[in-house]
Amino acid sequence: MAAAAAFAPATITLRFSSHSTLRFFKASSRFLLVPPKPHVLPPKFQFHGASVPLPGEEFGKRRFCSVVSAALKQPGEMVTAADAAEQPAGGLGNRVGKFRKKLKIADVKGGPNEGLDRVGQNVVVMGWVRTLRLQSSVTFMEVNDGSCLSNMQCVLNPEAEGYDQVDSGSIVTGASVCVQGTIVESQGSKQKVELKVNKIVLVGQSDPSYPMQKKRATREFLRTKAHLRPRTNTFSAVARVRNALAYATHKFFQENGFVWVSSPIITASDCEGAGEQFCVTTLIPSSQEVTDSPVDGIPKTKDGLIDWSQDFFGKPAFLTVSGQLNAETYATALSDVYTFGPTFRAENSNTSRHLAEFWMIEPELAFADLNDDMACATAYLQYVVRHILENCKEDMEFFNTWIEKGIIDRLTDVAEKEFVQLTYTDAVELLLKTNKKFEFPVAWGCDLQSEHERYITEEAFGGCPVIIRDYPKEIKAFYMRQNDDGKTVAAMDLLVPRIGELVGGSQREERLGYLEDRLEELKLNKESYWWYLDLRRYGSVPHAGFGVGFERLVQFATGLENIRDTIPFPRSPGSAEF
Amino acid sequence: MAAAAAFAPATITLRFSSHSTLRFFKASSRFLLVPPKPHVLPPKFQFHGASVPLPGEEFGKRRFCSVVSAALKQPGEMVTAADAAEQPAGGLGNRVGKFRKKLKIADVKGGPNEGLDRVGQNVVVMGWVRTLRLQSSVTFMEVNDGSCLSNMQCVLNPEAEGYDQVDSGSIVTGASVCVQGTIVESQGSKQKVELKVNKIVLVGQSDPSYPMQKKRATREFLRTKAHLRPRTNTFSAVARVRNALAYATHKFFQENGFVWVSSPIITASDCEGAGEQFCVTTLIPSSQEVTDSPVDGIPKTKDGLIDWSQDFFGKPAFLTVSGQLNAETYATALSDVYTFGPTFRAENSNTSRHLAEFWMIEPELAFADLNDDMACATAYLQYVVRHILENCKEDMEFFNTWIEKGIIDRLTDVAEKEFVQLTYTDAVELLLKTNKKFEFPVAWGCDLQSEHERYITEEAFGGCPVIIRDYPKEIKAFYMRQNDDGKTVAAMDLLVPRIGELVGGSQREERLGYLEDRLEELKLNKESYWWYLDLRRYGSVPHAGFGVGFERLVQFATGLENIRDTIPFPRSPGSAEF
Repeated sequence: MAAAAAFAPATITLRFSSHSTLRFFKASSRFLLVPPKPHVLPPKFQFHGASVPLPGEEFGKRRFCSVVSAALKQPGEMVTAADAAEQPAGGLGNRVGKFRKKLKIADVKGGPNEGLDRVGQNVVVMGWVRTLRLQSSVTFMEVNDGSCLSNMQCVLNPEAEGYDQVDSGSIVTGASVCVQGTIVESQGSKQKVELKVNKIVLVGQSDPSYPMQKKRATREFLRTKAHLRPRTNTFSAVARVRNALAYATHKFFQENGFVWVSSPIITASDCEGAGEQFCVTTLIPSSQEVTDSPVDGIPKTKDGLIDWSQDFFGKPAFLTVSGQLNAETYATALSDVYTFGPTFRAENSNTSRHLAEFWMIEPELAFADLNDDMACATAYLQYVVRHILENCKEDMEFFNTWIEKGIIDRLTDVAEKEFVQLTYTDAVELLLKTNKKFEFPVAWGCDLQSEHERYITEEAFGGCPVIIRDYPKEIKAFYMRQNDDGKTVAAMDLLVPRIGELVGGSQREERLGYLEDRLEELKLNKESYWWYLDLRRYGSVPHAGFGVGFERLVQFATGLENIRDTIPFPRSPGSAEF
Repeated sequence: MAAAAAFAPATITLRFSSHSTLRFFKASSRFLLVPPKPHVLPPKFQFHGASVPLPGEEFGKRRFCSVVSAALKQPGEMVTAADAAEQPAGGLGNRVGKFRKKLKIADVKGGPNEGLDRVGQNVVVMGWVRTLRLQSSVTFMEVNDGSCLSNMQCVLNPEAEGYDQVDSGSIVTGASVCVQGTIVESQGSKQKVELKVNKIVLVGQSDPSYPMQKKRATREFLRTKAHLRPRTNTFSAVARVRNALAYATHKFFQENGFVWVSSPIITASDCEGAGEQFCVTTLIPSSQEVTDSPVDGIPKTKDGLIDWSQDFFGKPAFLTVSGQLNAETYATALSDVYTFGPTFRAENSNTSRHLAEFWMIEPELAFADLNDDMACATAYLQYVVRHILENCKEDMEFFNTWIEKGIIDRLTDVAEKEFVQLTYTDAVELLLKTNKKFEFPVAWGCDLQSEHERYITEEAFGGCPVIIRDYPKEIKAFYMRQNDDGKTVAAMDLLVPRIGELVGGSQREERLGYLEDRLEELKLNKESYWWYLDLRRYGSVPHAGFGVGFERLVQFATGLENIRDTIPFPRSPGSAEF
């Protein structure tokens, strides 16, 4: 309503509170269609864009919003139905307006006929200019709002209101714009529809130093611009697929009766019994402005040791490396739970496969054994892969073309093929029998290397995901359930082509005596596991779970080579920018 | 199939791999109904429970799973359809079994007629014994599996298989059991259906020291048993409602086209420009076993300062206090995003309203002003409240009866009433005019105290949620958009009865010049905000967002007095247990 009035002349006047600065955008984008009978706005309300600084204002101090609201505000105006900010019965205060889903480019172009059903509709698109091509009689402007990979191709004639901003060179790559026009069938072959522009408003200029120009930038360079890289095709596609994988994760577990549990981030426990952990402390001055902290300022005992009693938690505390042990406490009360949260490793490995901060999904199933665990991991992986193949078609086509040829086939295999399980012992036998030469030797008792895992899933089983189970207990964690052979534990690793291990899990040792023996064998401090042992003391149940490294999953689903490109702000040795 | 065979005599024999330890539970719980024509199992396959230690085995070293699988395993047996672990065409390895949703007590009793539609069905229930009442001819056992508040009332006659375990006192509060029986109409008034038990298997004994006995424990005591408290009514209900609120959060934003973005946990930025932060470092030995760390071991420069260049990130790093600034980078590329992750404050406040580690939801909307922000926050809050009122009826009734009388009415008000907005200036006027005496004085320019906020929402507006907007800029953060009056900023706080502030948000300053001026006024280091300022340099757009403290929301939705009871493992000064 309001937008229609702002863009088209109107006979009725509108009342806006002094804060309805952006209403002229929104209302139109939400109402979508210009009312059949356009209103005529007196000339003084007509709005000519806000990109030109007011006299006395420097660039960057544009009063865009206020200009708009000032242009539209008049005392004693009529209130429309859309403007719900009216006074409630009580007197003081106004009602809060209704929230409506914003119209996005994905809403226009994402349907089965790619927007053809919207031909003739009058819409407002808001986004960032990707490219501008000036031709003799017409200008093509590609606008992207991040809702999908596709831009909205906007066709501007010199008659379009606000076209002077194109002429003056204000509308360039990186600028933000608000464009109003009519959806028409496209003459080009790249898209079904385009926007015939009636009016364009420059919202925010883009300085010529804008680093995301059209020329292709390396991913290394883009990592130094992590705040701008989501404006590229690759990183916006990664963000959307990452989001879809996260939501599919929640959907899968919720639909199967699992309860999401937030495991603690700061903890005094070390789940794996090893693992490099980050220390969390307030003994060191806590503002980054103070980089000149004297070591002498750290409280110490008379023996010169760090005085942990003065730290925030009264003892050393660390960032969690896994929420599993905590998840077990909830699984043995609520039956099936999952965590989905950040975990940390302070390993000094600067590889394309490791992050210091990464998200993990850790389901834990009560009254379950390793077979359930494998079945659940398989069902989960197939569900999320199917979800992105169905819901992120355009982005997946992009990855298939530009990042990893064949990724759609590879993922379709995972979604459809039956997963194979074989024991570690059989896997070792298989590796010893092959003629293939490996860099690392194969022997029963050694951990499988990435090359071995990839051989098994990519060659031996022809691209089929493979679960290897029943590993030697010496190479697995203390909490894994001992098998009857006394040599192996009920552990499993799920291997997928190209990535290798994507999921690791196990049945947990639910027998108190066995678990205590194992802690002693490994010289772990039994006292600090008192609560974990309690779970075996009071109504212990067979239970099992697994962990999925979420960024590894994103890597698997997008084909990206470097894991630092799968998370918005990667953390690794020497790097905690942004 | 397998379970049916295990419980009822069968003529066909079954093949299990040596790892199908729990199959006899699962298959029955998943197949639900005993096949119409029961099979007859030869006596040697009949299974008499696994709770009795084998000769030579101590308690806690029960070989429950192996006993079951050994009892069921026979060479050369038939493979049933349920056992999908057959060999694939290739030869080596087996297929992975199918994952099926586990039957839970909520599935039986959660329907509209509370289980009456299942009368006559033969089911298996697995869970933990809450109470056991022995009467002259019959024993009542309440079993809970955490899927809902309700227990399954199990009625045992001495003829039930495994009843000897009741007689011998092995089946007590806290023990885990597997119970097979028939759903029948209940004679009692407390439930519609109960389970007439054919067979009971003790899965895990419970040591007599079990601290979660029936007698009511204080919540202070239960906090020291955070690993067992989810086995109580209150804490299992909190876990389910917390889960429902989290899932509803994702659903709301996903349905409205928002993209979930993970903001970094470890960061060198301090969003609020102040705030007590935790330092994250590897300069201090990283295992909790080493509490005797000499201060001298910390690397230092020749001036005696901490040598940050040797730290993991090469400079001081901290735990995030908010993901907002990072979210803004993605909002200005993808239009609408939200974060949902942990945040941290190292404030030494040991109150019932503060946690050192808490989860935040931070949506950020591009092309949006404060009105959109308020409308979105209102719609979000109403959505999640409606979600739990509709989906967590039993738990909400429990809170209504035992935790806060009237909470359902209070939440219904929030879900249905129109929210009121008023300016800070109007709110101050309102507070000055009332006759009510406040502990803290009211004056324009001072922050509102909890007592003021509660007066406004509880009394002045009769239980209606109220949004206060346009606060003095001096009491708000640097990034909030300056209003035209030059004195206030486009900030908002959403107040709800009983809790006070539940949501805080603002329109962000999108004008580069204004933002730079504000940083200078506040003597903040402009250099360290280079990337945040870039967002205003390249295609800046009006944008707004808000933050919801998730634990505050859980508190609001459950009526719990202490915020430490809203998160599984609370962290506060001196407390990082579990």
